[in-house]
Amino acid sequence: MNLLDLIVKKRRGHRLTDGEIGTFVSGVTNGTLPDYQVAAFLMAVCFNGLERDETLSLTLHMAHSGKVLDLSSLPGVKGDKHSTGGVGDKTTLIIAPLAAACGLTVAKLSGRGLGHTGGTIDKLESIPGFQTALSTGQFMGVVQKTGVCVAAQSADLAPADRVLYELRDVTGTVDSIPLIAASVMSKKLASGADCILLDVKCGNGAFMKTRTDAQLLADTMVSIGRGAGRTCHAVVSSMDTPLGCTVGNALEVWEAAEILRGRGPADLRDCCLHLTEELLKLASERSGAAYPKAEARLADGSAYRKFIELVTTQNGDASVLDRGFAKAPFIREVISEKSGEVSRLDAEAVGLAAGALGAGRKVKGDPVDFSAGVVLFKKPGDAVTAGEPLCELHTSDESLFCEAEELLKGHIHVG
Amino acid sequence: MNLLDLIVKKRRGHRLTDGEIGTFVSGVTNGTLPDYQVAAFLMAVCFNGLERDETLSLTLHMAHSGKVLDLSSLPGVKGDKHSTGGVGDKTTLIIAPLAAACGLTVAKLSGRGLGHTGGTIDKLESIPGFQTALSTGQFMGVVQKTGVCVAAQSADLAPADRVLYELRDVTGTVDSIPLIAASVMSKKLASGADCILLDVKCGNGAFMKTRTDAQLLADTMVSIGRGAGRTCHAVVSSMDTPLGCTVGNALEVWEAAEILRGRGPADLRDCCLHLTEELLKLASERSGAAYPKAEARLADGSAYRKFIELVTTQNGDASVLDRGFAKAPFIREVISEKSGEVSRLDAEAVGLAAGALGAGRKVKGDPVDFSAGVVLFKKPGDAVTAGEPLCELHTSDESLFCEAEELLKGHIHVG
Repeated sequence: MNLLDLIVKKRRGHRLTDGEIGTFVSGVTNGTLPDYQVAAFLMAVCFNGLERDETLSLTLHMAHSGKVLDLSSLPGVKGDKHSTGGVGDKTTLIIAPLAAACGLTVAKLSGRGLGHTGGTIDKLESIPGFQTALSTGQFMGVVQKTGVCVAAQSADLAPADRVLYELRDVTGTVDSIPLIAASVMSKKLASGADCILLDVKCGNGAFMKTRTDAQLLADTMVSIGRGAGRTCHAVVSSMDTPLGCTVGNALEVWEAAEILRGRGPADLRDCCLHLTEELLKLASERSGAAYPKAEARLADGSAYRKFIELVTTQNGDASVLDRGFAKAPFIREVISEKSGEVSRLDAEAVGLAAGALGAGRKVKGDPVDFSAGVVLFKKPGDAVTAGEPLCELHTSDESLFCEAEELLKGHIHVG
Repeated sequence: MNLLDLIVKKRRGHRLTDGEIGTFVSGVTNGTLPDYQVAAFLMAVCFNGLERDETLSLTLHMAHSGKVLDLSSLPGVKGDKHSTGGVGDKTTLIIAPLAAACGLTVAKLSGRGLGHTGGTIDKLESIPGFQTALSTGQFMGVVQKTGVCVAAQSADLAPADRVLYELRDVTGTVDSIPLIAASVMSKKLASGADCILLDVKCGNGAFMKTRTDAQLLADTMVSIGRGAGRTCHAVVSSMDTPLGCTVGNALEVWEAAEILRGRGPADLRDCCLHLTEELLKLASERSGAAYPKAEARLADGSAYRKFIELVTTQNGDASVLDRGFAKAPFIREVISEKSGEVSRLDAEAVGLAAGALGAGRKVKGDPVDFSAGVVLFKKPGDAVTAGEPLCELHTSDESLFCEAEELLKGHIHVG
């Protein structure tokens, strides 16, 4: 294939054939296409988009660019859930054991990612000993034994996506709905689940800033999932305010454990119950039965026990979930200057502050500070008195407070 | 500078500052910017364009990315002429000596280029011994002595343009009017002439297919030239039919010599007189006097003598211009199947046929076959009888006839 012809075709807004897209993806995977041509192609896609069938072709070829997991030997319906990411979004940590406690088989591969905090895998690694790098055999073994496993995506899963994602990251071609959809769904399809629930976040703390874009991304991903023969559904949920009261790796794991123990903030609990309900419904649970079932599993402690089992089976020290994580060496409160009601708590600003405190990574391969992050004491609607703390900043490096405070300034409104 | 920010800015349609463009051009010139980022940036420019002031900034920074010729030590007004290229366009070979014979100082740097035939430099090199690789000192010496010199652009002239052009060529980002304008004008500005005449070709045999695009390119280039303080004018001329009756390197040199001797095809003669008139007017010749002056220099043989002087001073064997070039070893006629009048003679098809016969190069650095090309016996409006030859194909490789004939098929209409 001559990639130049494809670039020109897409630049002129013409439709690419499945064969052309397939040759493109294999060239990307085996590294035979020069990255400057791939970059030019991606930018042309950003402007002229991809039709639904082109997006499906791209996703399927990316999904098959490496290993494709075959979960058919595992019992029951295999469910997977993906969130497009938001500030304080620790739902996977809760939904995976909760759905498993409800009888779903949850064989989940997750990423590290770049962002305000680490990805699900980083969060889990804040539990001492927790193993995320599993061979396929180990992964299947854990699922077989406990009904749930959350492991790191291996390098041979949708390798074309990794190459494309790294290039998009440095060429200003990240925010293209068909490219985002193909990236997410290629990994989901290669992970092998029967049912896929997509949680598309929208708002200032999410990648999709508007509901229109979020809905378009949701529709595109569902259309890919169904086109690939999977049961697939998407919900669009707001990310203008952080989810729950913690943003940071160990801080979020602790909060997830709290929810699973039947405690924790209501917004996070509601969100997780709702997503679990949708996931169970996808796996053909009767409509009215799914929500009460999930509630019951939280109430009777079986969801928390499943989490402990998951952690223990993956070699983690579950005692930390009862005892609590080691606190960050430096903690500073952010004090409210006035009295009133919190009217707005900007998710993006809180996320950036958490990142500045060391909870996230800027460059692939960088370590994350497990203990760093933000703990929110007040959420929108809460009353606050002048002098009362609004939130707490946690970090291992005292010199980072200044930037974090600067980033938060003006983004917690007391009206 | 973070090029990623510039890519995103241009992708969103925002205006870049002169400082940003300057840092971009120096990064391109010294090779510190990764080519995948440059490629993504160029594609974003293709979609969102550049404002006039951005285009001027880009051109000026490109012009100053290497050596800038200072022609101030040369006598008189220094004139330069550039054609955007078409099939059979040998006007530079005629206009340079003709304008010099009219008293203008013509210090012209030209390229080789990729296309149906070689560039002006390749054409001149079909004259045995002709030297195009001159040092700046040699170049200035020739102009000082004869009033005219046509030499190859050295690698240190607008090096940023070379880097960008090579990347555009392989990333589908060639046809962007601001990028084309910046590429042409950066070299013109670096070449140092006071007056610049631009001949923008439009039609099926030209890069600009429509008059609207050609006019836009013309306006953009003139605006750059004037913005840079040069006297600048552009004409848009049709390129639906090849110019003159020859397409090929030595074939075109011969035809140029014929025009300078007061013979040759009328369309080519008219075109060259018109362009020379415009160039002389730019150099402040009185409006009504320029055309008759150019005509007189053709008629009295002084333009041809100037050409012989140019060739001889640049070490070429001028005797070949009287004696004729060695013919290509293989010549085949294309015969008309019917009688009538030639209604259309597709410039692009003739150009492609000449290229297929070996007159052009596909890849930089390839040699060109000086003797290859097409000689037209009939032009639109000419009567033809069935069995009469329409044109003649010249090549050094007999096996190339087949493709050339195929390319011409259906493109010479006899109505």
